[in-house]
Amino acid sequence: MTGFVEYHIGEVREAAGRIQPYIRRTPTLATDLDPNLRLKAECFQVTGSFKPRGAFNAVLLQMARDPRPAGLIAVSSGNHAQAVALAARTVGIPALIIIPQDANPAKVAATRALGAEVIQEGITFANREQRLRELQAERGFSLVHPFDDWDVIHGQGTAAMEMLEDQPDLISLAAPVGGGGLLSGSAITAKSHNPAIKVIGVEPAQADDAYHSWKAGRIQTLAASPATIADGVRTTAIGERNFEVMFANGLVDEIVTVTEDEIAAGVRVAWTRLRIALEPTGALPLAAYLAGKLPKGNTGLILSGGNANLETVAKLLGTP
Amino acid sequence: MTGFVEYHIGEVREAAGRIQPYIRRTPTLATDLDPNLRLKAECFQVTGSFKPRGAFNAVLLQMARDPRPAGLIAVSSGNHAQAVALAARTVGIPALIIIPQDANPAKVAATRALGAEVIQEGITFANREQRLRELQAERGFSLVHPFDDWDVIHGQGTAAMEMLEDQPDLISLAAPVGGGGLLSGSAITAKSHNPAIKVIGVEPAQADDAYHSWKAGRIQTLAASPATIADGVRTTAIGERNFEVMFANGLVDEIVTVTEDEIAAGVRVAWTRLRIALEPTGALPLAAYLAGKLPKGNTGLILSGGNANLETVAKLLGTP
Repeated sequence: MTGFVEYHIGEVREAAGRIQPYIRRTPTLATDLDPNLRLKAECFQVTGSFKPRGAFNAVLLQMARDPRPAGLIAVSSGNHAQAVALAARTVGIPALIIIPQDANPAKVAATRALGAEVIQEGITFANREQRLRELQAERGFSLVHPFDDWDVIHGQGTAAMEMLEDQPDLISLAAPVGGGGLLSGSAITAKSHNPAIKVIGVEPAQADDAYHSWKAGRIQTLAASPATIADGVRTTAIGERNFEVMFANGLVDEIVTVTEDEIAAGVRVAWTRLRIALEPTGALPLAAYLAGKLPKGNTGLILSGGNANLETVAKLLGTP
Repeated sequence: MTGFVEYHIGEVREAAGRIQPYIRRTPTLATDLDPNLRLKAECFQVTGSFKPRGAFNAVLLQMARDPRPAGLIAVSSGNHAQAVALAARTVGIPALIIIPQDANPAKVAATRALGAEVIQEGITFANREQRLRELQAERGFSLVHPFDDWDVIHGQGTAAMEMLEDQPDLISLAAPVGGGGLLSGSAITAKSHNPAIKVIGVEPAQADDAYHSWKAGRIQTLAASPATIADGVRTTAIGERNFEVMFANGLVDEIVTVTEDEIAAGVRVAWTRLRIALEPTGALPLAAYLAGKLPKGNTGLILSGGNANLETVAKLLGTP
């Protein structure tokens, strides 16, 4: 194990203990599809996605620091928003979430229901970072970045840790990649467990910045927010820390891309044959598996969440 | 503990050991709905329902007897069919399944895919028992009854056993009731664990024979197969052995009925908020919970299966 992996896995282990009272140990499921397949069903996590793992780790560490934050601020189109809202409510400080106008309304409503203030009016993909900086200065709130943050990365690494406790003999592990929080955390955990495990990121072909960053050996940025059905990975570039873990340190072996049709097939198989109501982003690794794009043998898929836009899913299920 | 419960719980424990290599230990899930709620997600069981628990126990015991059966025969509209087909294939003998003509086509296809011979032509609810006896005599196959069989009842009791291992402090436990296999097995397990646990059966108001049998103190039979969306509980009467466990010995405390709208709401909440793709029958206990028909406090719901008729579910999800 390299010193880099050794340091970061220690932080993931500490994160696991820190967040344990607030998150769920989600099940590792077997299926009738393939005896070699195991699914880490993070759709059963608190708020319906893996995001509270990283958010709670970051927030609890910020609360332990001096000065403690007056409140939390985050930019998110959905699952990270709910996670930060819940973490803020749990530690008893306000949360302000900036959500682009075109976000999934169900995710926005869920964020408000968790007690967060949501600012959505006039927020676009282009101006959201600017608005974030303005509002952060105005309120003095502390930022919880959705992926480019070590505390968040370490928290996200706990999902793969639980999965490898349940199923230690995986030979490959696949997770969705948007900004790279989940994938970089998973890679730290998997490579410390067994350096021979193949760690694979799955992203939509419509949003293939991680693929190009992997090939180019430096961060590549998409010109615009991609129009993929997988609304959880519409980021235009992975983060710097995520790049450092995944590619600079080589902890991710491969980035696989899937078409929109393959994602739709993944959602359909999840809902009809695996009985798991995933959101399209959560179905990315399953889509890659069904398309024959993952290695044979004992394979773990991290299914990141289940906060589906019901209209989208009703449409998908209606199209066999 | 009465001698009756003591004897039968011993058989459930033996069943658990016997079937262990062939079934899955399904997860007990917590949810964001209510911290007191626990879900036993049998939709993740092999074949997508709890039925293999009873079928494997019955088939393995038959194989151990003399004479060993030449083959297995069963009547079922769905989940029991798949369970018997799988058990027969596993022990290496043929299976013949008699399925009414109007059954869910997905369940029929799944039964054939498991290698069973299916006879469906000319089979109606009215003539199926007659056809069963004729075919049984003709082939010399051994019957696996879907519920009125002690081996089946003991196998079904293993689901509640796992759930109470995971969550020992339940104060009530609810399960669907059709013929009463799952409910009577669950009742044996729950009352041996703690005689104070309230055991509740949930059935559609359209198929309220168990309710009337409970009230009358003897088996009451519906005049015709009921037209409920919950196609797994369209039996017209509970079995004699099931009556003996549930009401003659008083191991079931209450039968609750739910309307078709309440079942639909249960399916919708399961799919959209719990991220579990249940079939309507599997959502019965959740429907009762959501309708406020279950006791307050730590409640376990046995969600029996996920083999949904996709058309039905697409329709349900489209109607908020």
